[in-house]
Amino acid sequence: MASLPTRIQINEEGPREGFQFEKGDIPTARKIELIDSLSRTGIDHIRIVSFVNPKRVPGMADAEEVVAGFDKRPGIHYEALWLNQQGFERALALRDRLYVRGTVSLCASEPFLQRNQNRDFAQNIAAGHEAMQMYRQHGVDVKRASLMAVFGCNFAGDVPVAQVLSTVADAKAVAASGGFTLDRLTLADSMAWATPASVKRVVGAVQDAHPELALTLHLHDTRGMAIACAYAGMEMGVASYDASVGGLGGCPFAGHKGAAGNICTEDLVFMCDEMGIATGIDLEALAETGRLAEDIVGHPLPGAVMRGGSLRRLREKVREAQAA
Amino acid sequence: MASLPTRIQINEEGPREGFQFEKGDIPTARKIELIDSLSRTGIDHIRIVSFVNPKRVPGMADAEEVVAGFDKRPGIHYEALWLNQQGFERALALRDRLYVRGTVSLCASEPFLQRNQNRDFAQNIAAGHEAMQMYRQHGVDVKRASLMAVFGCNFAGDVPVAQVLSTVADAKAVAASGGFTLDRLTLADSMAWATPASVKRVVGAVQDAHPELALTLHLHDTRGMAIACAYAGMEMGVASYDASVGGLGGCPFAGHKGAAGNICTEDLVFMCDEMGIATGIDLEALAETGRLAEDIVGHPLPGAVMRGGSLRRLREKVREAQAA
Repeated sequence: MASLPTRIQINEEGPREGFQFEKGDIPTARKIELIDSLSRTGIDHIRIVSFVNPKRVPGMADAEEVVAGFDKRPGIHYEALWLNQQGFERALALRDRLYVRGTVSLCASEPFLQRNQNRDFAQNIAAGHEAMQMYRQHGVDVKRASLMAVFGCNFAGDVPVAQVLSTVADAKAVAASGGFTLDRLTLADSMAWATPASVKRVVGAVQDAHPELALTLHLHDTRGMAIACAYAGMEMGVASYDASVGGLGGCPFAGHKGAAGNICTEDLVFMCDEMGIATGIDLEALAETGRLAEDIVGHPLPGAVMRGGSLRRLREKVREAQAA
Repeated sequence: MASLPTRIQINEEGPREGFQFEKGDIPTARKIELIDSLSRTGIDHIRIVSFVNPKRVPGMADAEEVVAGFDKRPGIHYEALWLNQQGFERALALRDRLYVRGTVSLCASEPFLQRNQNRDFAQNIAAGHEAMQMYRQHGVDVKRASLMAVFGCNFAGDVPVAQVLSTVADAKAVAASGGFTLDRLTLADSMAWATPASVKRVVGAVQDAHPELALTLHLHDTRGMAIACAYAGMEMGVASYDASVGGLGGCPFAGHKGAAGNICTEDLVFMCDEMGIATGIDLEALAETGRLAEDIVGHPLPGAVMRGGSLRRLREKVREAQAA
């Protein structure tokens, strides 16, 4: 049997993924309620908002109010996402409430970049250089890169491993242009092309070529592969995963065709718990938060464990029955 | 990387799992429509009905009509399930339409047996001996055993590997009592306790102790682990899986709390396709059948690929765009 990590770091993406995806108008107070509930589960990294154009993402128009309103607990990194200088400055203004760090953001698919950001590879690298200067000027450290579309792309098809490796090299060079040294790399399966086999192939190649970079996997569950891909990642020693409580960002309804959030946090924690891998997270509290998320968005979410239940309570019942 | 099987056998359980689970009254003609649709996907083993007490399982009251009505295609094994002599005789009467073979059916959890069949281990083995005599008298061969609750039980808790091995030994002895020799063993995670780690542990122990038995995994997705468990099984060389189109038997609604069908057939086929493992099944036709199943039961089913789509069409679009 492969040797699995003894501990996994889970980075909660639910509030950001969910609230930018949901169509309905979710009251700010309920967004804050979800973040506060997550804060009581043992999760220590929570991405709570995006600072993006409210015209394009109306669900994030109240980002400042959300950041001002949640109950900030010690030991938890509350993070935000931004895509440009304007967004970064909005985050920076709330630095007392947020853990602000820079990221080198690149993409392994040029057609995806062109479609989403109207940039080719070279233009995107140039934008990365500018971002590094921005972070440098504001005294914000950059240790992490995040690469989109690493396992395949709806507009480029299969992404060769050589392309991924070259994008990693680009990311290191971008960081170096600002005097930064990367120690972590997020490999994002932005369009849910990954399988356990491709996770092993890509992760293995990156580990071989860049052994100094710790890896995070960001998996989407559009085709039901996320939990199997996470397991494959664990077999490769990957010990950090982005995840989304309840599977927020996805929806099992046909009306939301093709949409699916990150891997469901509580399903991932369940798998870790049952395989003896520590997460520091209380599964029962997290499943409760998953049900709260369903209540807030007003429709079923894809998570399984919040419905199927954990095994802890069943084991307790068995012990009680045996003792009786 | 582990060496995966080059070909996987998939045994479709959807009609049986789904129609016995669904609360509403599904017209016989629509059940037949689903079976006929499955027959056109390349699937070559389909479990279509249960011959059980119609008072206890009203959804199977029309089993004879279903068997009489479907379009029987050459090369496909249409199978039925039964739990006792009465059920077996109903199947036997339709032998020209069904592939009738005997099974040694045991269970690795005594509390589950007691609760469901009002038998202890010894009584269940005695019933197995009687079943073997029944098969022998009717000239029906028995080569397969199926063990329930192999990975854990809601009423017994964790099932020790030693208990599984002892139940396998019991199954071989039961078969031998009728002059039969087993060549295949189904390990069923009846209550969805399995994780990839426990699949590897149990499968490995059974393979070591009984190398002459080919294995089939029967996985339920109540806690979202089924696809990861199937991948773990493949890494152990297991090349046969029961599965359920659309995830029939399960439902993402809270109103069906805790219910979840087998691993979803088209999600499993997608994973195999993408990892270069042959199944002989046409994924697009199967996803279409998954959508038909949703239409028949009248509510969303858990399957992901029928919503998220396969990658084949995306790859075709990319090629077309590149050629243009």
